[in-house]
Amino acid sequence: MTDRYLEFANSGLGGWMVGALGLPKPAPLQRRAEAGAVALHPLLLESAGGGRMGPVLERVATASGAPLRRRWSVDERYGGLVFDASDCVDVASARALYGFFHQAVRSVAEHGRIVVIGVPPETAATAEAEAIQRGLEGFVRSLAKEARRGIGVQLLYVAPGNEDAAASTLDFLLSPRSAYVSGQVVRVAAPGVAGDARLGHAGRHLLVTGASRGIGEAIVRLFAGEGAQVTALDVPAAREDLEKLAGELGVRPLGLDITTPEAGDALVTAARAAGGFDVVVHNAGITRDRTLARMDQREWDSVMAVNLGAPLALTRALLDAGAIRRNGRIVAVSSLSGVAGNMGQTNYALSKAGWIGAVSRLARDGLGEGVTINAVAPGFIETRMTAAIPFAIREAGRRMNSMGQGGSPVDVAETIAWLAHPASGGVNGQVVRVCGQSLLGA
Amino acid sequence: MTDRYLEFANSGLGGWMVGALGLPKPAPLQRRAEAGAVALHPLLLESAGGGRMGPVLERVATASGAPLRRRWSVDERYGGLVFDASDCVDVASARALYGFFHQAVRSVAEHGRIVVIGVPPETAATAEAEAIQRGLEGFVRSLAKEARRGIGVQLLYVAPGNEDAAASTLDFLLSPRSAYVSGQVVRVAAPGVAGDARLGHAGRHLLVTGASRGIGEAIVRLFAGEGAQVTALDVPAAREDLEKLAGELGVRPLGLDITTPEAGDALVTAARAAGGFDVVVHNAGITRDRTLARMDQREWDSVMAVNLGAPLALTRALLDAGAIRRNGRIVAVSSLSGVAGNMGQTNYALSKAGWIGAVSRLARDGLGEGVTINAVAPGFIETRMTAAIPFAIREAGRRMNSMGQGGSPVDVAETIAWLAHPASGGVNGQVVRVCGQSLLGA
Repeated sequence: MTDRYLEFANSGLGGWMVGALGLPKPAPLQRRAEAGAVALHPLLLESAGGGRMGPVLERVATASGAPLRRRWSVDERYGGLVFDASDCVDVASARALYGFFHQAVRSVAEHGRIVVIGVPPETAATAEAEAIQRGLEGFVRSLAKEARRGIGVQLLYVAPGNEDAAASTLDFLLSPRSAYVSGQVVRVAAPGVAGDARLGHAGRHLLVTGASRGIGEAIVRLFAGEGAQVTALDVPAAREDLEKLAGELGVRPLGLDITTPEAGDALVTAARAAGGFDVVVHNAGITRDRTLARMDQREWDSVMAVNLGAPLALTRALLDAGAIRRNGRIVAVSSLSGVAGNMGQTNYALSKAGWIGAVSRLARDGLGEGVTINAVAPGFIETRMTAAIPFAIREAGRRMNSMGQGGSPVDVAETIAWLAHPASGGVNGQVVRVCGQSLLGA
Repeated sequence: MTDRYLEFANSGLGGWMVGALGLPKPAPLQRRAEAGAVALHPLLLESAGGGRMGPVLERVATASGAPLRRRWSVDERYGGLVFDASDCVDVASARALYGFFHQAVRSVAEHGRIVVIGVPPETAATAEAEAIQRGLEGFVRSLAKEARRGIGVQLLYVAPGNEDAAASTLDFLLSPRSAYVSGQVVRVAAPGVAGDARLGHAGRHLLVTGASRGIGEAIVRLFAGEGAQVTALDVPAAREDLEKLAGELGVRPLGLDITTPEAGDALVTAARAAGGFDVVVHNAGITRDRTLARMDQREWDSVMAVNLGAPLALTRALLDAGAIRRNGRIVAVSSLSGVAGNMGQTNYALSKAGWIGAVSRLARDGLGEGVTINAVAPGFIETRMTAAIPFAIREAGRRMNSMGQGGSPVDVAETIAWLAHPASGGVNGQVVRVCGQSLLGA
């Protein structure tokens, strides 16, 4: 799980060597844990026209402690650039993108953030406006590939009138918590209910499946560290890891095979004991990789059951029992493989792409008062699972992204924590990749 | 423009060497020109339940001359597999995918085709059905990566009741004309008008921009070869190439800079002289690659004007003048860069992603009786433009796809010819990649 190349390239001798040889030098990412003591660079907000993002950015900046600037200066380094391109409605007005970023992109500090704001393309007034707004995706994904130095670049479509609902998302995208998220497109619409978001995750009841290690463990640690009441579920065979974690963090262990017929009832019982869940994270997942011609029926069935069938059934059982609370959050862990497909993963990719359909549908149908459902799609994350991949393939997976390195389980956990935040009700039915802008896709 | 590695790996000595060294051995693709004399393997149609695709497949098979089988046999080799997964509505019924392909995938002949049929996910009856139908994307994209031997694998969502409208699309996807198309998702809905499709492109009036060479030239050659009346447009500076082509093929040359203020009127005049256009292909495009920080304003402006602003304005001018005929077709050439973004192409990717928004919007708005608009997004195509790319980057671009090679301009032309076919009215507002299932994406 150690990325020796990253360490080497950033050591004294190694840095000199990779420089002399012209090899890539990925920047060590700065996450929440490392960023704590760093002085905050100012945020810069400019716009192609209107000022609709001003008030929410002011609140985000104030909460983070960073000063907010409204005009670029050659003398400053910025921790984040936010450019509101909502008024780019034709080729002529889209030139503002060039005008701003041509200069300002050089002024972003290492580990800084860039967010471009647009309106949902289908709401644009004309075909040309929709073209430009949709075109922002190509612009942002290109800029993300140019940025380097640990800089993340995202596109945020904010439906007009819902600027306030973008606060938790802007806060996440401009923070070290989004260190391994880049080249992503997020939409913010009206939140279902206006919840009191000041407490964040503190006191919220969370269920995580596949909780004993890897990404699941990181989720447990993050939410428990923020004061959530965590029910950590894993298969009975993982009891030892699970109870160790529970003992360390004071979370509630729940040994349960989610694919068994009694799992629904057991989970509803656990939910009732907790007074209902505020957050459910469907993280449990397995791989049984083999080309379809060689795969056996059990390998197909078990992946489909664990990754898709069981969590869908449990979601339904919890909803039917009223066990998801008001302003609740459901987050599923999908995968880059579900987006792009992967050799040897017809079963896994079907199950993970299935979640893209499921979150879209369940969000459209509506799940209850203020309840949202979203998915994260991790790329190459450094876990025991990826450590088992043969060296050459693992190296390729690690490097084929704009950050030049694999992500950490905590990067996935941070992304889930944003989606699960009580103030994130405006984000619903979406899939966010946590992949350092992997080259791979569809 | 010669792929020496592909030639070497498929030569006697070279084939032995790449085999001994364990290097990849891309299969030379079999396009229409090469496939002419090859005996046709049967098509196989099976289904997870209903038989809705039977009649249309029978017509497609009859027209192509291939026998149609309805049950897999271990003793046969198939030129195409079509599996109708429309009735896969939950994890249990999705097992039919495994049951069929686990055996049948080995029975596909070299250069064969696989098409999975589904229903548009958002029309599925339940959330689990939507999950499975959307999940087919992951399944198909994985299977496409496993297939090799020049086999293309696609997903076709056919809205219930519109099976007949899928004929031209099935015909294309099962033919050598789709040699460099794989891992794609296409939707078929109701065609706007029931046109007489028997003549194909013969006698249809076509306008192509950027026509003098590369992909544009291939489009001109293909349509002219099928008896279309072609107006071949390019900038005045390309006059020599254009007139040579016009002389050879008997097409009408039109020297015009599409970014000039008089271009709209000139084009409408040309359209009127032709009695209106049946097909307009916006192929003209330029690159001015540079990172945004180093790009100058003219590089930004010219790419935006040529690739997006001018063709959008000309589309509007032609529509307003009634110069696009009934059952007309508009096809824009987008790019993989518009999908995934690309370093040094903030301008190009914005313009090309813009077309993804534009075709979606214009198709939704409706353009006239039976008129459709779609886009193709080429990946790495062997042209003078890509021949100018430095060797190492060119090699990476060539190999990073499921076919292990770059495409030919004719692959893009064939895809456009399918979308532009009078029988393709059920395909509207879509983007189809011509990329050999490039690994790159978003």
